[in-house]
Amino acid sequence: MLYTPINFKEKLSKFTEHWSPKVVAEMNDYQFKLVKVEGEFVWHDHPDTDEVFIVIEGVLDIEFRDGKVTLESGEMFVIPKGIEHKPVAASECKVMIVEPRGVVNTGDAESSLKAQNDVWI
Amino acid sequence: MLYTPINFKEKLSKFTEHWSPKVVAEMNDYQFKLVKVEGEFVWHDHPDTDEVFIVIEGVLDIEFRDGKVTLESGEMFVIPKGIEHKPVAASECKVMIVEPRGVVNTGDAESSLKAQNDVWI
Repeated sequence: MLYTPINFKEKLSKFTEHWSPKVVAEMNDYQFKLVKVEGEFVWHDHPDTDEVFIVIEGVLDIEFRDGKVTLESGEMFVIPKGIEHKPVAASECKVMIVEPRGVVNTGDAESSLKAQNDVWI
Repeated sequence: MLYTPINFKEKLSKFTEHWSPKVVAEMNDYQFKLVKVEGEFVWHDHPDTDEVFIVIEGVLDIEFRDGKVTLESGEMFVIPKGIEHKPVAASECKVMIVEPRGVVNTGDAESSLKAQNDVWI
């Protein structure tokens, strides 16, 4: 049998909206999600889990209350659980997120940017 | 404070050996590892966990008892737990592995390719 790889570019071609992560794979109870981002997200945190951002294409700033990190293609960062952060992208950026199944993009924050969870492409 | 991104190319420049995964990040009790591979690995499985392969550069075949998958740069695959597999790379390939802390590269197999675990770069 020929198994099918999960191709990031092909998956990213399937949607256009921003700040709406799409699940492409599960490993145990963790999910790998692809998301397109542009502009400013909301300040939020995830009280129960770390969160990984891997930049596929573009540039992503992640602001913290005491500083920031800038990620380019081929770079990653682990947001520790409970740490407030705000992703910001000056122009469209394509990102992979890794986190446990069930994590909502806006964490504990109330926001119109809250995306439907567990949407697969 | 300016936080430091984890840059895959910079991390990969720090070692040359094959089949010896290096940890670059931890998220909860999971580790993100970079590894350079070339040639044939051993048949093995991980009875307690799925395992993710993401190809950074090059081409990786993962053989299964009933087939195979070929991964290129920007592609990933999830090896389900308990499924025997054998990674093969015709020429050097750079790969990110995601799996729980404590997973040994050769799984249950006895092999001279068994690498020291939990080595950070």
